[in-house]
Amino acid sequence: MDELLRFFQRELPEINEFLDHEADQLNGLVRDVAKYILGSGGKRIRPMLTLLFARALGYGKDDYQAIACALELLHSATLLHDDYLDEAELRRGREAAHLVFGRTETILAGDALLALANEMGARYGNPRLSWLLAKGIMETAMGEIEEIEFSRSPSLDRETYMRIIIGKTARLIECACRCGAALAGATPEQEDAAGEFGLNLGIAFQLVDDALDYASPTSETGKPEGGDLKEGKVTLPLILLMEEGDEAGAEVLLEALKEGRLSDAQTADILGQVREGGYSEKTREEAALYVEKAKACLDGFAPGDELVVLKQAADFVLTRTK
Amino acid sequence: MDELLRFFQRELPEINEFLDHEADQLNGLVRDVAKYILGSGGKRIRPMLTLLFARALGYGKDDYQAIACALELLHSATLLHDDYLDEAELRRGREAAHLVFGRTETILAGDALLALANEMGARYGNPRLSWLLAKGIMETAMGEIEEIEFSRSPSLDRETYMRIIIGKTARLIECACRCGAALAGATPEQEDAAGEFGLNLGIAFQLVDDALDYASPTSETGKPEGGDLKEGKVTLPLILLMEEGDEAGAEVLLEALKEGRLSDAQTADILGQVREGGYSEKTREEAALYVEKAKACLDGFAPGDELVVLKQAADFVLTRTK
Repeated sequence: MDELLRFFQRELPEINEFLDHEADQLNGLVRDVAKYILGSGGKRIRPMLTLLFARALGYGKDDYQAIACALELLHSATLLHDDYLDEAELRRGREAAHLVFGRTETILAGDALLALANEMGARYGNPRLSWLLAKGIMETAMGEIEEIEFSRSPSLDRETYMRIIIGKTARLIECACRCGAALAGATPEQEDAAGEFGLNLGIAFQLVDDALDYASPTSETGKPEGGDLKEGKVTLPLILLMEEGDEAGAEVLLEALKEGRLSDAQTADILGQVREGGYSEKTREEAALYVEKAKACLDGFAPGDELVVLKQAADFVLTRTK
Repeated sequence: MDELLRFFQRELPEINEFLDHEADQLNGLVRDVAKYILGSGGKRIRPMLTLLFARALGYGKDDYQAIACALELLHSATLLHDDYLDEAELRRGREAAHLVFGRTETILAGDALLALANEMGARYGNPRLSWLLAKGIMETAMGEIEEIEFSRSPSLDRETYMRIIIGKTARLIECACRCGAALAGATPEQEDAAGEFGLNLGIAFQLVDDALDYASPTSETGKPEGGDLKEGKVTLPLILLMEEGDEAGAEVLLEALKEGRLSDAQTADILGQVREGGYSEKTREEAALYVEKAKACLDGFAPGDELVVLKQAADFVLTRTK
């Protein structure tokens, strides 16, 4: 993973500086919210992927920051609105923005970041980029809505679960990769390959996220263990557990999740069963399949530094513990 | 005003049908909110202006709806978020969306409409259109934020007031006009003239709105009389009144507005003074100046049906009573 680490160390300061500079231009009412969410230790996976694909496809200019950072802003905008609507208390181990800055500031900061992201993407006068970004914004908004709908009437259906994680996570990562390709003026085939890589990586990323939720202690992820279950969210570890149980039990659980009346004892019991059955690990195994699919999408790319880093980034998704 | 009326009667059904069709594609959780706000009797001024400028500048194709309606969606998105954050109870005489559909649905519908607007604008593959729309979205978001900041620390400064109404209303109307010109492949000079027209018309429109708030009964505008004052909003009729009073009185009023402790007696007193002093009418006179400025921007346009309608539309802004 040396190349990956070096790449991030080299490129991250410029990305962060650019994000900081853009946030500084915002109106005072929302500036601090924007800086707070952007400064809360995001992994900057989306900007890095845009940059990597642009470079891998031969883009030599140094103006990649606006489109790369647009995706990060869009992601942050979603987090702000989501956390407010979910009444989330924590984000990346820190108090959620709406609790620090208030409702109005947080909603408007989300709007402002979305608008800014879009404006940054339009700076290139590249219709393909604008289209990809517009589609990414639309899919992200729809994904957010689908997720909330799913949380209100949860099911243990894997297809629905996959659709949700694609909508809420993978499409935006796909968009980041496609934008890098489009910036480089890639062929449709190259852009599709980049997009496929991103889609599969995004799925793997969310699967690992959902696995970690059942596996790791608060200190590493910044989230309480089993937080998804406590919030009534159905994710793959739980689906895998229920697939091996009886249907009646599943019905009872769904009802309890829906009505938010899972007792502490029931929660502890399910967490124990997931642990014993190794369903968190099985979810990671599923993620590994998608990482392989992602890497296969890179077959047509010319060898080079970026390709090495992209492959390491795919592997890293699997090994991360927070 | 015959041509104006006939134009609206002829074109409105297609615009409304398009809006309805687009809203129908949205996810169920937000679809009804979108249809509710879009069906609440908006005047469709923005789409009409886009269409008029496109036609006035020679655009003959029939695919204008997406960009024209994008501006209407963007406007509706703003209304949804604004009304929720303001805790408004009424919008166009009907119960505000957040009270009918709830917080989550309303915020997400705003996000979805904004995303859809943007996507609709990107459909043309026209970088100038995407740029104008992106800028329009950004300015609208910033205008929204400035207005809320202004309402928290109101002043009786006319310059600030003008900046606020430009940000919250006029820029988007400017954008609608520019988009029409850009769709028609106008020269920069033509687009600027269209934009200037829209900016001045937008200012006039908001001035009349602010005048109406002090003048007309609930039944016509769908808003309670003096609603702005009761909400602590400073608009031109109040500024004009205070400009003729003493400074100490103005300070006392500002403090009371800021802390939301204007008594019913004080409110009635101010409403009476505005009425007696004719400050609502004076605000309309101010609006008339901007309507003249707007019409002057049309000097370079070739004579034709659209030009007649545009001039009538400008005049109509002044005469409307709701």
